[in-house]
Amino acid sequence: MNEVFDISNESKELKRNDQAYLLHPWGSLSENTNDEPMIIESANGVYVTDSDRNQYLDAIGGMWCMTLGYGNEDLALTMQEQAVRMPYYTPFGSMSNIPAVQLAKKLAALAPGDLNIVHYTNSGSTAVDSAIRFCHYYFNATGKESKKIILSRKDAYHGSTYLGASLSGKAWDRTCFQYMDTLVHHLSSPHSYRRPPHIAEENFCNYLLNEMEEAIQQLGADNIACFIAEPILASGGVIVPPNGYHQRAQELMKRHNILFVSDEVVTGFGRLGHFFSSNIHFGLDPDIIITAKGLTSGYAPLGAIILSEHLAREIKETHLKNPVFTNGYTYSGHPIACAVALKNIELMEKMALCEHVRSIGPYFIERLQELEKYPIVGDIRGHHLMACIEFRASNAYSPIPTLEDIAIAQAVDTHCQRLGLLVRPYESLCILSPPLIINEQQIDSMINILQNAIEETMKEMD
Amino acid sequence: MNEVFDISNESKELKRNDQAYLLHPWGSLSENTNDEPMIIESANGVYVTDSDRNQYLDAIGGMWCMTLGYGNEDLALTMQEQAVRMPYYTPFGSMSNIPAVQLAKKLAALAPGDLNIVHYTNSGSTAVDSAIRFCHYYFNATGKESKKIILSRKDAYHGSTYLGASLSGKAWDRTCFQYMDTLVHHLSSPHSYRRPPHIAEENFCNYLLNEMEEAIQQLGADNIACFIAEPILASGGVIVPPNGYHQRAQELMKRHNILFVSDEVVTGFGRLGHFFSSNIHFGLDPDIIITAKGLTSGYAPLGAIILSEHLAREIKETHLKNPVFTNGYTYSGHPIACAVALKNIELMEKMALCEHVRSIGPYFIERLQELEKYPIVGDIRGHHLMACIEFRASNAYSPIPTLEDIAIAQAVDTHCQRLGLLVRPYESLCILSPPLIINEQQIDSMINILQNAIEETMKEMD
Ligand SMILES: Cc1ncc(COP(=O)(O)O)c(C=O)c1O
Ligand SMILES: Cc1ncc(COP(=O)(O)O)c(C=O)c1O
Repeated sequence: MNEVFDISNESKELKRNDQAYLLHPWGSLSENTNDEPMIIESANGVYVTDSDRNQYLDAIGGMWCMTLGYGNEDLALTMQEQAVRMPYYTPFGSMSNIPAVQLAKKLAALAPGDLNIVHYTNSGSTAVDSAIRFCHYYFNATGKESKKIILSRKDAYHGSTYLGASLSGKAWDRTCFQYMDTLVHHLSSPHSYRRPPHIAEENFCNYLLNEMEEAIQQLGADNIACFIAEPILASGGVIVPPNGYHQRAQELMKRHNILFVSDEVVTGFGRLGHFFSSNIHFGLDPDIIITAKGLTSGYAPLGAIILSEHLAREIKETHLKNPVFTNGYTYSGHPIACAVALKNIELMEKMALCEHVRSIGPYFIERLQELEKYPIVGDIRGHHLMACIEFRASNAYSPIPTLEDIAIAQAVDTHCQRLGLLVRPYESLCILSPPLIINEQQIDSMINILQNAIEETMKEMD
Repeated sequence: MNEVFDISNESKELKRNDQAYLLHPWGSLSENTNDEPMIIESANGVYVTDSDRNQYLDAIGGMWCMTLGYGNEDLALTMQEQAVRMPYYTPFGSMSNIPAVQLAKKLAALAPGDLNIVHYTNSGSTAVDSAIRFCHYYFNATGKESKKIILSRKDAYHGSTYLGASLSGKAWDRTCFQYMDTLVHHLSSPHSYRRPPHIAEENFCNYLLNEMEEAIQQLGADNIACFIAEPILASGGVIVPPNGYHQRAQELMKRHNILFVSDEVVTGFGRLGHFFSSNIHFGLDPDIIITAKGLTSGYAPLGAIILSEHLAREIKETHLKNPVFTNGYTYSGHPIACAVALKNIELMEKMALCEHVRSIGPYFIERLQELEKYPIVGDIRGHHLMACIEFRASNAYSPIPTLEDIAIAQAVDTHCQRLGLLVRPYESLCILSPPLIINEQQIDSMINILQNAIEETMKEMD
């Protein structure tokens, strides 16, 4: 009795302090938030436990980033050892550290094509900023100073810096902040499920490519630096573009000397069964790949851009007097974060985790598709361990989720939580991206809980 | 013999790989860089060792961020334990973790005034972006949508995102990148040593404040959101503004409803003898404080903004329908980074490290001032364990360092390195910010090496 009493008091106090002292990402600034914080206290494998000692199967995967699972002792030991040996030194100028060098070599080997030059950051967002800044640097250095505009897409998510948030195109995310406009152009989202109702599915790709070509004509290719794209739009709603979209977009960009930046923050590091998916799944040959999240299995903040050698060579050949790349962060190439990433890759290779995802991924998608039978399920989509369920209150077309759609997703989410499953409630979606170590039995229990939650929600709607 | 052979081969290979695969922050993109990388392999206390087994006293302090010293076993163990217990979970919405909550409470207690609301990031740069984005959010939410411009200063350094680099005002850093212009206004640097030659030192503060007032008149207070300022400009050259500057600037900003953002990324966490220095040393009462670097003693990437409660309250009182703060990062409030920060603060308090800095800081500055006797030393300035030596080739006035000034600083740096001391060569400066645990004897040996290095440099100039 006493222990239970203590736990619950401690938990209450944590929640009070959370509400008093913390402004969360996407936190509420309203007077009366009823949302009680959920405080994750411990975690192991694919399970997490909150401060009230409720255990959940984690279908969020941390937030797209958990690959090896929670409580990995090898990763923990790696951090400790590197912290004792060499916890930090400046990465600026010609200063370096061993894990940063070794990881760079490894990333160059894993990345496709001539993407062999690594520039580190501390997150996906700062990698996005660095990638765009590199594009501007490249065109300024090579005498094409007018190439400045960045093509992005509605429903894209590229982070939360001023630039990243401006590149992002999710309607619901645009709140009271200030956004850049002149430098960013948003194309349509390649979202088949919410495509304009007069466009047939088989014409949707043509429609998107025509729009892209027109935008380039209108803005002028000479004014456009790059196109940034997630191979599958992640936070925007696991949006898988129509077949052929990527390759055709890439051809178009190449023709107009527009750099192709592939944001693999989510699609990399095994989530689709490979370390990078741009090339293998989408036939892309990007100029820059952005990575973060799964790179360290979520254990340490780290991001990176991987640059094409030919771009660096072109800058060198301009014979600029002193081409210093004045971009980077105090914690770029942090030795502990890089040591964790190296160990993460080593373990992923040893466990053949990408192979595991390639074999369990199709099973996961197949089982999920069973949920299409429910009328409130509008769409199931995804690729390997990156998936979502889109809920709908009615069959009527809407270009964005309605408040009723959103209410259903939240009801399902609440039931899942009660039943021991954490899914990511995002607008009208349940987003699912479990740790890559998940097995068949755990997938089955996810599906069971989802079925129950959907049925409960439908009962409440009657 | 064999072992020596191996070490040197391994070191050479590391350097080759560094040059092949890594683009460093402020790295060179030129064809023929002669700069051989220096790879720090191990470190302990205030000493670091490179891959060629040379040991150095570290007067850079990692990069302003090393407080507790290298190889701290307690911090290492803390990381390992937290990684096993709970390595990561999403901080979005109402999700939270224990170290993030506890650290927020602690930061609120350490920060001055009503700065009690903590919003985490992964670096100083992303904290700068978040602070500015908060200012925009605040004015948009409270119906003052025209307040958008950010006042910054030449010589400021506020990071390396697109926004942060645009706020920064260091002339040498402006390379081939793209920078924002309309939203940022740069005031003069409060740099007494390089003030316009017609301004007497005792009039310099008036001069700066007049310029500030005129800029506000010209731009219109209704168009200005905030003033961002490092209490002492760090990377711009340890620039200590004239007495009275901060308080007069703050009064001016308050009068015009312009928020005051104090960037304490360097001046916080003990470097000036206190956890925060805005209030204690400079009489400031900022609306937002930005922190990073020393917050984790460099052991983990972490940044934060600490917001005034009255700003949050004003947003709440507008009764916006759904004021969601759509800003934040995957690794915001990372449990391992927050656990490290908490342990760092605990150890700093237990060791009375701020008190140590308050007692050893004046000794350090005093001993440094002995170097003023050399004609190539133009200025010595600083505050506690944040200092620099400014070199000069001649007495002639120059608004920015000349190439000759810079060559001297680099020669001194090279000699220091040969003599076993790492200083941060920045333009015409040697920047000195040793780990806070440094003792008198180690300071004496820094000064000795600096003296030798300066004398060697002068000999070469003859
Ligand atoms: C595709 C993509 N890019 C960039 C980011 C930003 O990464 P971070 O949150 O680490 O800054 C995210 C984060 O969710 C993402 O999904
Ligand atoms: C005053 C100040 N602000 C912001 C930053 C940016 O911090 P970070 O490099 O962690 O992004 C720095 C880094 O040196 C700094 O000195």
